[in-house]
Amino acid sequence: MNGLTHLNEKGEAHMVDVSPKAETVRDAIASGQVIMKPETLELIRSQSLKKGDVLSVARVAGIMAAKKTPELIPLCHSLMLDQVSVDFDFSSDNTIDIEAKVRCTGKTGVEMEALAAVSVAALTIYDMCKAIDRGMMISDICLQKKSGGKSGTFIRDGNK
Amino acid sequence: MNGLTHLNEKGEAHMVDVSPKAETVRDAIASGQVIMKPETLELIRSQSLKKGDVLSVARVAGIMAAKKTPELIPLCHSLMLDQVSVDFDFSSDNTIDIEAKVRCTGKTGVEMEALAAVSVAALTIYDMCKAIDRGMMISDICLQKKSGGKSGTFIRDGNK
Amino acid sequence: MNGLTHLNEKGEAHMVDVSPKAETVRDAIASGQVIMKPETLELIRSQSLKKGDVLSVARVAGIMAAKKTPELIPLCHSLMLDQVSVDFDFSSDNTIDIEAKVRCTGKTGVEMEALAAVSVAALTIYDMCKAIDRGMMISDICLQKKSGGKSGTFIRDGNK
Amino acid sequence: MNGLTHLNEKGEAHMVDVSPKAETVRDAIASGQVIMKPETLELIRSQSLKKGDVLSVARVAGIMAAKKTPELIPLCHSLMLDQVSVDFDFSSDNTIDIEAKVRCTGKTGVEMEALAAVSVAALTIYDMCKAIDRGMMISDICLQKKSGGKSGTFIRDGNK
Amino acid sequence: MNGLTHLNEKGEAHMVDVSPKAETVRDAIASGQVIMKPETLELIRSQSLKKGDVLSVARVAGIMAAKKTPELIPLCHSLMLDQVSVDFDFSSDNTIDIEAKVRCTGKTGVEMEALAAVSVAALTIYDMCKAIDRGMMISDICLQKKSGGKSGTFIRDGNK
Amino acid sequence: MNGLTHLNEKGEAHMVDVSPKAETVRDAIASGQVIMKPETLELIRSQSLKKGDVLSVARVAGIMAAKKTPELIPLCHSLMLDQVSVDFDFSSDNTIDIEAKVRCTGKTGVEMEALAAVSVAALTIYDMCKAIDRGMMISDICLQKKSGGKSGTFIRDGNK
Repeated sequence: MNGLTHLNEKGEAHMVDVSPKAETVRDAIASGQVIMKPETLELIRSQSLKKGDVLSVARVAGIMAAKKTPELIPLCHSLMLDQVSVDFDFSSDNTIDIEAKVRCTGKTGVEMEALAAVSVAALTIYDMCKAIDRGMMISDICLQKKSGGKSGTFIRDGNK
Repeated sequence: MNGLTHLNEKGEAHMVDVSPKAETVRDAIASGQVIMKPETLELIRSQSLKKGDVLSVARVAGIMAAKKTPELIPLCHSLMLDQVSVDFDFSSDNTIDIEAKVRCTGKTGVEMEALAAVSVAALTIYDMCKAIDRGMMISDICLQKKSGGKSGTFIRDGNK
Repeated sequence: MNGLTHLNEKGEAHMVDVSPKAETVRDAIASGQVIMKPETLELIRSQSLKKGDVLSVARVAGIMAAKKTPELIPLCHSLMLDQVSVDFDFSSDNTIDIEAKVRCTGKTGVEMEALAAVSVAALTIYDMCKAIDRGMMISDICLQKKSGGKSGTFIRDGNK
Repeated sequence: MNGLTHLNEKGEAHMVDVSPKAETVRDAIASGQVIMKPETLELIRSQSLKKGDVLSVARVAGIMAAKKTPELIPLCHSLMLDQVSVDFDFSSDNTIDIEAKVRCTGKTGVEMEALAAVSVAALTIYDMCKAIDRGMMISDICLQKKSGGKSGTFIRDGNK
Repeated sequence: MNGLTHLNEKGEAHMVDVSPKAETVRDAIASGQVIMKPETLELIRSQSLKKGDVLSVARVAGIMAAKKTPELIPLCHSLMLDQVSVDFDFSSDNTIDIEAKVRCTGKTGVEMEALAAVSVAALTIYDMCKAIDRGMMISDICLQKKSGGKSGTFIRDGNK
Repeated sequence: MNGLTHLNEKGEAHMVDVSPKAETVRDAIASGQVIMKPETLELIRSQSLKKGDVLSVARVAGIMAAKKTPELIPLCHSLMLDQVSVDFDFSSDNTIDIEAKVRCTGKTGVEMEALAAVSVAALTIYDMCKAIDRGMMISDICLQKKSGGKSGTFIRDGNK
């Protein structure tokens, strides 16, 4: 079907057969941003210098979402993840950068797990700050790198 | 805590008390985009003119994600949703626009449900096309409108 | 769309708007059968006269499935169930009859919850006995009665 | 316990120890039917010739249910599925035939996953058409074939 | 059945009918302890004075578990929780005290939700510290107070 | 981080990398107690001599909770469990003893799965008897033994 592997020759969805694939170590790094008012970011940042919980809760939500990916994405295979981490950075006065790294030893890659972790961490930041800034935007969620498996290594153009 | 209602005075996360709030009809519309190669979009589009399943699977995933929101977002209240819809449009030759509408009769709003529906629909499109276009980007996920509840109506600047 | 309410005018799936509907008490009774070798049934029956667990586990599975229905059936609304029961009977020497009753006070009916309870109870019986009888068949799962809501009462023809 | 492996010698439920079993490729095919009024079937069929969603939604629901099986069936082992597909056919003017194929590489078979996929696909068809045909019946859910594992190959009598 | 309301007259499990009950505000407070080596407690405490995550992760886990209660406890009714909070205290040099408060407006109480929140917060503390102290013990999980509903107010003897 | 492996050097939570670990057979046994009025225990005991369901439902809940552990405990790795059993004993006239045994072949241990099974079985007993004995206490939940993996065998002091 022109490369859309999740569709059979009749255009119908299915979970593709990965039984012939080898179990190898697979890594994926995804990233994204939450753009907000500078005063919202300042509040999160100052709160995180103390004992605050906004980013801590978002990190837990992102990690748990990685494990939940096959429940969320209909045609995703279940995988046993070896490692998940979610990190936050402040690249400007109105942007929180999110990066998720996922590793597994299995038959399919973990791109979706990394992307889901970023997405749900971003949604959680939105949820925790929406009372003061309903206009926040979640943006630029994409795969930065992946390695392992037959399709080999992918590195996003311009990835540092 | 400076308006971060999900944190108590010690900066600790909690699920805020909504027991005094009235049950009213609450609506939210969220939107987002998946940006891809024109040839990927062309494939989805031609496939959807036939009996194809990419957008159909993404729509189901988005609707189911709306119902799953309180499992994904740690401090979200559970709600019984009255209505969920997810729509797709093609605003340019490399962009799929996603819009989710959610309604409930309850004590808190459904912004997170609408944003989660958009996010998971976008992730599902990514999953179904990643074999041919690993560089796709999910972008501009934001709230367009919400109404109902004490905080009243929000309409995003520039919203048509 | 010719009465298929889960599809909009373009034939696309959505969760229909129940916000205008009244909250009323809604009941549903569904039934089904598991057909097996007489010796399998005899084993379950004798085991259940003692402290045995086949039907007890199947009953718990059915009750839990009723609560899980909106996770299983994509366009089902979430409901807070008031009552769920699952009962078993032996109508012949090769058939276990299953009946599930579900009640809720809400805006939509509980037919799907009752049918899901019967289905998962039947699957659980299959699972627990499959080592000795892989040919078992699950059959005749249908709605016997439902009441409440605008569409009123349904009683299956020939329902005793 | 007379072959009921899910019960210990006291008749109590447990998840049996599969640690000594070998990881092999295991396949299962299950089937079932939804029987309805000819006009309901005609509606689904004509709708599926266009861009319609009844069977597409049911297919997604069935695939997701296969992955959810160990959450539904209390004593089922978790497995990482290699492949899931769900197909529909029209064997007469009032019957939709459902067939699910599941494959995994693991220590236990995937009969329950295939049966669960058929059951939930059938329930979803019921849900999407119940507004016009509440008398539909789900029937003849059974295992057609399974292979792999110590118990070997099973082929249902009369299986084509 | 002698007051065991979750069993019918035949001793079989069911979810009891709460449809005749009134929706009222219901509160529950549960508590429990994790007992550990003083050096483990010291590590958690010093880590929590900084930006540390042990108790923050345990708090999130407890709050999410409260929402998951009807999935965990087979005969529990689903409820929409109005409020959940989980707090930690250090009553001695080897004990972390956990307290969960849950509120809902509904037809049944939230005792199980509060007890589940305490239990899962305790398990999470165990998980995060088990590499250094496998002998930790979770103890004294009990209901401190509950109010609302027909059975009225319960206050544990000796509760401060 | 002083041995708290679930925290990185900045004190932030992550799921630790188990990819270098070997897949070995891992066992864990956890135990706990529910303390209640003698008349409550008598009721459960007499009911269990008949066909009763209190302990049978609690056993199923415990087994299912073991499978759900990675959804409950945020930083737990997903595992495919080989075996789960939950047993009850009456050590005195006011105490039910619970023991859970879990085995898997994997890269991390199953201590949390065994502890979660005990905890949820105990909560289920509480739920089923709370109408007659709201003062019940869940106590002494701890690991008795574990074996397998690099950290080797742990046997609790005083374990019989």
